[in-house]
Amino acid sequence: MRAARYHGPGEISIDEVPDPTIESPTDAVVRVTHTAVCGSDLWFYRGESDREEGSRVGHEPMGIVEEVGDAVRHVRPGDRVFAPFSISCGACEYCRKGVHTSCENGGFWGSMTDGAQGEQIRVPQANGTLVRVPDRYADDQDVLQSVLPLTDVMCTGHHAAVSAGVKEGSTCAVVGDGAVGLCAVLAARRLGANRIVALGHHEDRLEIAESFGATDTISARGEAAVEELRALTAGGVDHAMECVGMGAAMETAIDITRPGGTVGYVGVPHGVEDGDLVGSLFGKNVTLAGGVAPVRAYVDDLLEDVLQGTLDPAPVFTKTVDLNGVPEGYRAMDEREAIKVFVDLT
Amino acid sequence: MRAARYHGPGEISIDEVPDPTIESPTDAVVRVTHTAVCGSDLWFYRGESDREEGSRVGHEPMGIVEEVGDAVRHVRPGDRVFAPFSISCGACEYCRKGVHTSCENGGFWGSMTDGAQGEQIRVPQANGTLVRVPDRYADDQDVLQSVLPLTDVMCTGHHAAVSAGVKEGSTCAVVGDGAVGLCAVLAARRLGANRIVALGHHEDRLEIAESFGATDTISARGEAAVEELRALTAGGVDHAMECVGMGAAMETAIDITRPGGTVGYVGVPHGVEDGDLVGSLFGKNVTLAGGVAPVRAYVDDLLEDVLQGTLDPAPVFTKTVDLNGVPEGYRAMDEREAIKVFVDLT
Repeated sequence: MRAARYHGPGEISIDEVPDPTIESPTDAVVRVTHTAVCGSDLWFYRGESDREEGSRVGHEPMGIVEEVGDAVRHVRPGDRVFAPFSISCGACEYCRKGVHTSCENGGFWGSMTDGAQGEQIRVPQANGTLVRVPDRYADDQDVLQSVLPLTDVMCTGHHAAVSAGVKEGSTCAVVGDGAVGLCAVLAARRLGANRIVALGHHEDRLEIAESFGATDTISARGEAAVEELRALTAGGVDHAMECVGMGAAMETAIDITRPGGTVGYVGVPHGVEDGDLVGSLFGKNVTLAGGVAPVRAYVDDLLEDVLQGTLDPAPVFTKTVDLNGVPEGYRAMDEREAIKVFVDLT
Repeated sequence: MRAARYHGPGEISIDEVPDPTIESPTDAVVRVTHTAVCGSDLWFYRGESDREEGSRVGHEPMGIVEEVGDAVRHVRPGDRVFAPFSISCGACEYCRKGVHTSCENGGFWGSMTDGAQGEQIRVPQANGTLVRVPDRYADDQDVLQSVLPLTDVMCTGHHAAVSAGVKEGSTCAVVGDGAVGLCAVLAARRLGANRIVALGHHEDRLEIAESFGATDTISARGEAAVEELRALTAGGVDHAMECVGMGAAMETAIDITRPGGTVGYVGVPHGVEDGDLVGSLFGKNVTLAGGVAPVRAYVDDLLEDVLQGTLDPAPVFTKTVDLNGVPEGYRAMDEREAIKVFVDLT
């Protein structure tokens, strides 16, 4: 079979790799039909974080179950399934608490098992990890494209909103206009926010933010963005969502938050350690909540909304490639030609 | 009149200063009868934070109202009162939200008005800032010594516990055995915590922690302390209280917290920016909550408990001085001979 592998900064290729097999009774093998390229993959693609050369990449799989181990009960061969970016058993203390990313028996695609950008994958902890798409929708390509963001970005945006305490009537702001930021706008609207300010740098993305429910957009940077936000909101918001992961974005998120408010952050931290963040939070009693999104905790609720058509993150996909096009997908995202790349292996 | 002033690292003296007067209709003048020296004052005393030379110091006043401005309604001359370490109007958005430390009309002792270690003080925003001790207790010296910690350390420890989400049945830990850490133990017990682990370095202080309700104590440092805590609690606590303010204490607090848990922090941050704190929080979805304690939000509830004898933080005072003894009080706290110094001006 063939799969995408990383060979150093800027180098992704589609290589011949061994077929996966059931290695444990809790494994499943899934034939991947759809997957995606994630903004968080750009960290290693750009050489800004370490990754083993030759490793398989991708963490947003959807497909058809081919084979299951003896202990797998929740899915059967032929089922249309997808999986969060983290693998989780669904039964340990942390899965029961909704912190599936800290699962005692789990891990991540590309390290615990194969990366997801390939023709097939071995899925550990299949009972806990895999989510079925109900049969009625299992072959509807439009629905599947709307479901796929639940593997990561939609649930990650939702985690930002939940962590920031967004609720009915909230005034809130989203820092970042990548796929996660756009999904945070959708999530905030879904949670009933009254006013949603999207902060970004790209007009086309901010237009999507508006279509997703942003009531205001700000395209300035740094202190200018903070001042514009404060002017719009009489001094700041009670709920800020940090959806980038860089120090400057975190500073902005803290600066736009009113005393006693909360920053919900989900961007993988890069260079966030360089500022005096705690000092900034301390003086105004701003809470910092969030982290790596426990997608599996949210996916059932959000899937229901996607299936009934009241939640549709599909517009974050602005480019579609096949498996051979995955390297081009990374390039397009790296150069910001695409917000997020949909990989269609069918 | 006479008051304590700062003249550079290690140098506090009792100097002749002008008597305070009513400058605004919302001011009161209070004759100070009792005050204290705070661990947070040691930052400037040690030269680790800047403070203007010649400035008046201290922020934990209790005394008798001498005179009030025309707009002061809540207190009258003759009343026994005390005040939090921050001045607040009680009426603005942030006071109404319980974030009195961000009061739009407030400030701090020693900058907005005189420091509190002196014979008299001018109290701005007296309606919002001053808290009356009911007449029945107004001259009971034992009660007053138990009330005085409500000006700062008792409410600050309570803020750590509230911010960390401590509640009935919680398993929690307190990092730091200073007066604030000890008060956090008291606060956690008051909130119904089931298991309270106190981490410190001083046997005498950990003994007070035990008398305050700590079920376990750990006197190790760094990784050894983390390992001991994890062994005691099957892997960590859901609620950690950081009551020191230094980077190493914050790292310990994060390290001992289980995935999905919360660190409540109240130590004034010093050197906290040196680590990759956000990275440590991110992977396990640990929330960082707290900040400079909005004492005024908590003081009414806690005063009730002190007056009925169910809460007594007075044992944090291990040394008593008069006004002339204030410089000696700083020295004794700096050299850790005293946990907290009580200043009796009567």
